[in-house]
Amino acid sequence: MGETTTASTQDRGGQTRTARKRRAILDAATTLFLREGYLATSMDQIAAAASVSKQTVYKQFADKQSLFREIVTGTVAEVSDPVAEQVASLRDNTDLAAGLQGLARALIAQVIQPRMMQLRRLVIGEAGRFPELGRLFYDSGPGRTIDTLAATFESLAARGTLRLQDPRLAAEHFNWLVMAAPLNRVMLCGDAGRPAQADLDRYADAGTRAFLAAYGANTPLRPASQLESPPN
Amino acid sequence: MGETTTASTQDRGGQTRTARKRRAILDAATTLFLREGYLATSMDQIAAAASVSKQTVYKQFADKQSLFREIVTGTVAEVSDPVAEQVASLRDNTDLAAGLQGLARALIAQVIQPRMMQLRRLVIGEAGRFPELGRLFYDSGPGRTIDTLAATFESLAARGTLRLQDPRLAAEHFNWLVMAAPLNRVMLCGDAGRPAQADLDRYADAGTRAFLAAYGANTPLRPASQLESPPN
Repeated sequence: MGETTTASTQDRGGQTRTARKRRAILDAATTLFLREGYLATSMDQIAAAASVSKQTVYKQFADKQSLFREIVTGTVAEVSDPVAEQVASLRDNTDLAAGLQGLARALIAQVIQPRMMQLRRLVIGEAGRFPELGRLFYDSGPGRTIDTLAATFESLAARGTLRLQDPRLAAEHFNWLVMAAPLNRVMLCGDAGRPAQADLDRYADAGTRAFLAAYGANTPLRPASQLESPPN
Repeated sequence: MGETTTASTQDRGGQTRTARKRRAILDAATTLFLREGYLATSMDQIAAAASVSKQTVYKQFADKQSLFREIVTGTVAEVSDPVAEQVASLRDNTDLAAGLQGLARALIAQVIQPRMMQLRRLVIGEAGRFPELGRLFYDSGPGRTIDTLAATFESLAARGTLRLQDPRLAAEHFNWLVMAAPLNRVMLCGDAGRPAQADLDRYADAGTRAFLAAYGANTPLRPASQLESPPN
């Protein structure tokens, strides 16, 4: 990420000095933004924390907003890249319920990581002043996951595995059935309120079952009295 | 709210001077917190904006956190009081689907108001530093709504109108099926990204239908292919 082949001097790790500096700036800036907030962090502080000159920072990033933009897209991609792969692999899974359950558990585990939650809180806290940062987070995070889910659900519906008319709406329902409750609680109450792993899995499983009750075609529509019991 | 009968001088509106000052402080503080953020707002600024002395502010509120606490509970109660009443009235509604649909539309309209969203963003932005403020928002807002929904769903299940084993989980599924998608988008993208009223209603209706497909007893489990079509 951000490696360049233009600069000359290569160190032993094979990274150019420029790439190393760029990485140091991004790491220092991430730490400062998450700890101090967006407004309270200056390019001076970032340069000092990365042990580079302010000039070097500005050579890599036009301004604070460009730097923050790269942090958002980079951090969010760490989550949404593997999720997108797992969503796409649903098409080849012969056991849709098991595939969705595995996806649900992975999705919630990725999104609710402390670093992701801290970034999400930061972006939300600034959304009034800098809505473009929130839009960027949305597009590269939840928006992208929902797009990928919608495309996959559409092809599953074409194959008769799901029954739906609006793949995007079905994708939103799946995504939020699985993670909205714990995500909202941790967003508001802080990472100390993070549910135990077993509870996160329980949300993933229960969300998957409710989704299949509404949208499953092959899955028999089980009575809702069975919806909450774990699948052993 | 905050009216006292202890102070002596009553003005023509029947409010004591103390109550008027308290109201002015709360209004000024709300405006400043939402505009400047929690940390950036001082008790001095609040006193100046409310046209009272700093001493008067401290006579009413022990510190900035107490003042903010009262703003959160007061603002959130403006939404969750009427919602709680509407949830309770579901028990007497003979048409559960219509009752849930009406509730869903009201819920989403209340929560997604710009002032509520601004407060929610502010609290989330500070949740890392002041998790007790977020906990307060959660308990008096979504937490309270979900508690009320769970109690009502439990009695509907006892009557055979819903089929469920875990009323709280069913309440969370209803709440988030209805509002998670638009709420999350507006949280991140700012109030400019607020969906049109017709789209909010569409989310409310579709969330209600998916919920009934999973948890409804009297409602026939319609094929999911009909889930997204509006009820005329």
